[in-house]
Amino acid sequence: MNLILLFKADYIDPHRVRLGDRRMTHIKKVHRARSGDLLTVGLVNGKMGTARVLEIAPDYVEMAVHLDKAPPEPLPLTLVLALPRPKMLRRIFQTVASLGVKEMYLINTWRVEKAFWSSALLEPVSIEKELILGLEQSRDTLMPRVHVRRLFKPFVTEELPGISRGKMALTAHPSPWDVCPRQISRPCVLAMGPEGGFIEREVDSLVDIGFKTINLGDRILRLETAVPYIISRLY
Amino acid sequence: MNLILLFKADYIDPHRVRLGDRRMTHIKKVHRARSGDLLTVGLVNGKMGTARVLEIAPDYVEMAVHLDKAPPEPLPLTLVLALPRPKMLRRIFQTVASLGVKEMYLINTWRVEKAFWSSALLEPVSIEKELILGLEQSRDTLMPRVHVRRLFKPFVTEELPGISRGKMALTAHPSPWDVCPRQISRPCVLAMGPEGGFIEREVDSLVDIGFKTINLGDRILRLETAVPYIISRLY
Repeated sequence: MNLILLFKADYIDPHRVRLGDRRMTHIKKVHRARSGDLLTVGLVNGKMGTARVLEIAPDYVEMAVHLDKAPPEPLPLTLVLALPRPKMLRRIFQTVASLGVKEMYLINTWRVEKAFWSSALLEPVSIEKELILGLEQSRDTLMPRVHVRRLFKPFVTEELPGISRGKMALTAHPSPWDVCPRQISRPCVLAMGPEGGFIEREVDSLVDIGFKTINLGDRILRLETAVPYIISRLY
Repeated sequence: MNLILLFKADYIDPHRVRLGDRRMTHIKKVHRARSGDLLTVGLVNGKMGTARVLEIAPDYVEMAVHLDKAPPEPLPLTLVLALPRPKMLRRIFQTVASLGVKEMYLINTWRVEKAFWSSALLEPVSIEKELILGLEQSRDTLMPRVHVRRLFKPFVTEELPGISRGKMALTAHPSPWDVCPRQISRPCVLAMGPEGGFIEREVDSLVDIGFKTINLGDRILRLETAVPYIISRLY
């Protein structure tokens, strides 16, 4: 937790917060904070700054908050991911949030196992929990938006053309296509397939709406490795 | 497992292997292979190619092996990592192997917790197990070499100057230094700190032997995200 993320509900007056949950535990056990200590904080979807510890009680911590810094620039990237297996999904939420992605679509594809769709991790409250961990890790306050789309074809034909309009549109696919561009410095929509990849018909559907197919080289990377790898290339 | 990694001991004649371990289970359960099927294989530290399934018995699988392709080019990067916590270390071994890193040093630093050094994951056989998973994921055969160094000062003053001679030498450190260079196209030694980072004295020791300190931007990334991110930038 390199930043303690605050919410409106934490405020007990305009410049003071009281925390009683896992953040309190973290402040006590990891920061080993004492009265007077300064901690890095940020208000969700707002500014970042510092908080001075005022009181450490058994069941709460009170801090005086001073917010004066903008959060890091959002990445102008929309990620479209085939729903990963739950174990991977948890880390992907954190990873994506820590990298500064603010828009993500989780979609169905031919090779996504049906059972993945019943994961409790897809509940909005579970998604937010993981995203918060990513923001706290990376020192950011802007909450990513995650959209869940269970039907591939209507999403790609009806919704995705609007999302990708005016942006660079890329499909990452291990095949003898073009290599991934570098430092594009413009908005981009990036589609990434499941384990085993998109099927050719899906790649074709994306080509039909203007997506360019690119590869990441000879090596096949796990999604959680491929995501930072490709983001680092693009921006 | 995008490639089945073979070892000399698997051969029962010059072109035939017999597998009876988790690779057999994978071939049966995940590939759902039948006699005659072709699978992607590679010989550890040797060539890649295909194997035709000859026989699927209850307790073994026999395949005829044809190796004709070189593995992907190794990355000319030596990673020097402060020993991560065991849970992270397991994934780091896989990640590093999948990205094509072939030389890695695990070192002690001020902020590495002492308890991490007693992890069973540091046994050579455990390290190799995780590295194999990374090679199988990415389709590579060249086994990375992992070196464990428990003492920071002698490593940095006596051994690291030799390792980094003639190479670009970088320390990743979140601070107002230069940004990470891109596409360096030359050998590099990269030092990365533990959670919480190197202490200033450690950064100074690295500066003293010619390491340039670079940062990855505003966001603080977990090691397993930072490693692919920085490798993608450098190469």
